[in-house]
Amino acid sequence: MSPTPRRVTAVDTYDIRFPTSRELDGSDAMNPDPDYSAAYVVLRTDAEDGHEGHGFTFTIGRGNDVQVAAVQALRAHVVGRPLDALCADPGTLHRDLIGDSQLRWLGPEKGVMHMAIGAVVNAVWDLAAKRAATPLWKLLADADPAWLVSQVDFRYIADALTPEDALALLRAGRDGAAAREARLRAHGYPGYTTSPGWLGYSDEKLTRLARQAVADGFTQIKLKVGADLADDLRRCRVARAAIGPGIRLAIDANQRWNRDEAVRWTRALAEFDPYWVEEPTSPDDVLAHAAIRDAVAPVKVATGEHVQNRIVFKQLLQAGAVDVLQIDAARVGGVNENLAILLLAARFGVPVCPHAGGVGLCELVQHLSMFDYVALSGTTEDRVIEYVDHLHEHFTDPVRMRAGHYAAPTAPGFSATMRAESIARFTYPDGAFWAADRAQRKGAAA
Amino acid sequence: MSPTPRRVTAVDTYDIRFPTSRELDGSDAMNPDPDYSAAYVVLRTDAEDGHEGHGFTFTIGRGNDVQVAAVQALRAHVVGRPLDALCADPGTLHRDLIGDSQLRWLGPEKGVMHMAIGAVVNAVWDLAAKRAATPLWKLLADADPAWLVSQVDFRYIADALTPEDALALLRAGRDGAAAREARLRAHGYPGYTTSPGWLGYSDEKLTRLARQAVADGFTQIKLKVGADLADDLRRCRVARAAIGPGIRLAIDANQRWNRDEAVRWTRALAEFDPYWVEEPTSPDDVLAHAAIRDAVAPVKVATGEHVQNRIVFKQLLQAGAVDVLQIDAARVGGVNENLAILLLAARFGVPVCPHAGGVGLCELVQHLSMFDYVALSGTTEDRVIEYVDHLHEHFTDPVRMRAGHYAAPTAPGFSATMRAESIARFTYPDGAFWAADRAQRKGAAA
Repeated sequence: MSPTPRRVTAVDTYDIRFPTSRELDGSDAMNPDPDYSAAYVVLRTDAEDGHEGHGFTFTIGRGNDVQVAAVQALRAHVVGRPLDALCADPGTLHRDLIGDSQLRWLGPEKGVMHMAIGAVVNAVWDLAAKRAATPLWKLLADADPAWLVSQVDFRYIADALTPEDALALLRAGRDGAAAREARLRAHGYPGYTTSPGWLGYSDEKLTRLARQAVADGFTQIKLKVGADLADDLRRCRVARAAIGPGIRLAIDANQRWNRDEAVRWTRALAEFDPYWVEEPTSPDDVLAHAAIRDAVAPVKVATGEHVQNRIVFKQLLQAGAVDVLQIDAARVGGVNENLAILLLAARFGVPVCPHAGGVGLCELVQHLSMFDYVALSGTTEDRVIEYVDHLHEHFTDPVRMRAGHYAAPTAPGFSATMRAESIARFTYPDGAFWAADRAQRKGAAA
Repeated sequence: MSPTPRRVTAVDTYDIRFPTSRELDGSDAMNPDPDYSAAYVVLRTDAEDGHEGHGFTFTIGRGNDVQVAAVQALRAHVVGRPLDALCADPGTLHRDLIGDSQLRWLGPEKGVMHMAIGAVVNAVWDLAAKRAATPLWKLLADADPAWLVSQVDFRYIADALTPEDALALLRAGRDGAAAREARLRAHGYPGYTTSPGWLGYSDEKLTRLARQAVADGFTQIKLKVGADLADDLRRCRVARAAIGPGIRLAIDANQRWNRDEAVRWTRALAEFDPYWVEEPTSPDDVLAHAAIRDAVAPVKVATGEHVQNRIVFKQLLQAGAVDVLQIDAARVGGVNENLAILLLAARFGVPVCPHAGGVGLCELVQHLSMFDYVALSGTTEDRVIEYVDHLHEHFTDPVRMRAGHYAAPTAPGFSATMRAESIARFTYPDGAFWAADRAQRKGAAA
């Protein structure tokens, strides 16, 4: 008799919210008061190794409960799956989740339901990497190119990238991989920091943090813009003065503008030599991004943190609408869809500079960029991962920055595991933090 | 002392599911077994008139609970609003819901959260029309053009349609409106029927229903395609033989194809003279639709039932990607966003042929087309509203078809009100139907 296969036994969910709005951390022109949150998922198994798969959707507060409900709607697809098959081929689960015809109606492949799929799929990759006793970036970089191709859903992107194209890119990416891996382990992957530039910060705080960023070894910082042009002119001047001419200054409008407004505003800030303008308008608007890019060159156009799926990324590339493609580890359908997006970017020769920050986004996305460097694009030229110095203390394997670079993770997994104490304390609305907060407000009101 | 203003006192939600999968009603190449469902919302007030505002999101089964959770997340924005102000200006609530920065993160303006906003906004319009004692189409058709413009959010579409453009279109639309209203009341608005063409039906059933459709006065029917080309060739032959050469035959692939596959498949079916090919590929893929349209002419390209918002519709029009624009009353952010989309279509001179069917979608969308005919585009040429003869019996003011035309509703409101018995019986999982169904299955298994 063959032994009973080990299986997924539970998909547990947690509504975790951090009160970041109280310090204006994360404030920008569209998001004045975010409470950084995670709809968090833990896959549990009956394997003796005790490994769990962790994943999450990042949100900014209200609606985190809706996101949790969406993850729960996926449970029936996951519980009972045999572990060996699941971890050997996360792509099958990915396709089953994307392909559930009834759930698909709620997207398709966008918004709440798609992000929930991403959380679950990422949790499977976390589990697979833990079981393989390797960090995810290394699991991907060492994987057989044909197997990686099998993990990608080519539906709706085959007009720009075929499986054959993908295989050729991944095979070429193996050339020199060992040397790049050694370099990555020695020097890390370059980052840039948004910490100085939140819209709610004073000029003094902006100056202090911008100088600190340069002292810490960053070669690029980012400033939030888009609420008020006079303020933006002043803040860009302050930031440029603080960092000097040799450091790149990116500006980020968080979708605040219409097409023509984006052009006018970006041109008005051109005297401060912005390196890129990020999210100048709606992430859905491929044609507007193409028009803006034509009009604001040499300032580069960047977008992606809210781009819903590989299909829109494909069009941004086909239309020549972006200079810089910004993947997000937790917005699309997980590692599998981000593989498709990295392959599309490589095919079009456009650099990927991931969005990060939030809750745990730095922890996740570093693995994707490191894989890309070692075994796909093969370069870090003009590539930087966003870095924000918030909330890392809640993770068991937080990112480590050295001289403005992300150190390569060495712990097995996807660096997604949140500390049990943090989960307990910040679970909403009944964790210790929120219960005490409620009691205090009640006391203040009495 | 001024009297206390009347307010919204409750936003009640219901998870309503109909077991349509058992008859293969609604089966197509992407949706083999839909259980037509509604995440249903009722706004209650403390006004003496007793009017309620009804709205819903249509889904096809699983995930309807997620959609309900999303509506509940909007409650705090709605409860307590003064009724007079709310009904005099639904646009303010619409903007507040779209603009909630934390909830916006879950889209933005797409998927579960956006459809929930649509359900609530539509419920407000239902309430406003009931209080005005007029069907919604008539309320809109009689409205001051400047007020209608105030109901539209021009963010991200101003590069294609300005408020001034919209005002000019609406003012021009008033010319001859009284005569068109009289014609509408006398003859109704043309429909076409999808009832013969579901993929799960036999050739015999297809033939019978297609002949019946012609006998009923329809001048267009629609056939689901895209699962198997040999089947599609046979079914198109059967359908064309049943209806003869003078009736339009639309085909609908429900997003089944990649770009190049769509072109090949449509060309293969061209011998049966299809009038339009609907949803040939992903609704997100503006550029692919443009390429397909170029390649399959004179067959027209239609899409829209899954197009997420006005921004993607705008691009479909800007790119010349569609011949026929298919609005859906319950996919986007409600009447306000559909006003924007109707204005965009009028600006580009593209006919609007709404998606309907499902649960209550015919009931809702007829109001938008009738408004468009009376007071915006001013024509029904090449315009038809989809008709499917399912589930109308659950509504208090069901659509009435006469000689293939939708009769103009006369009851006040948006025709969104479901019968209380239907709500009670089909509420999932504890309504009488589902409870009995569960008991029966348990009995069968024992």
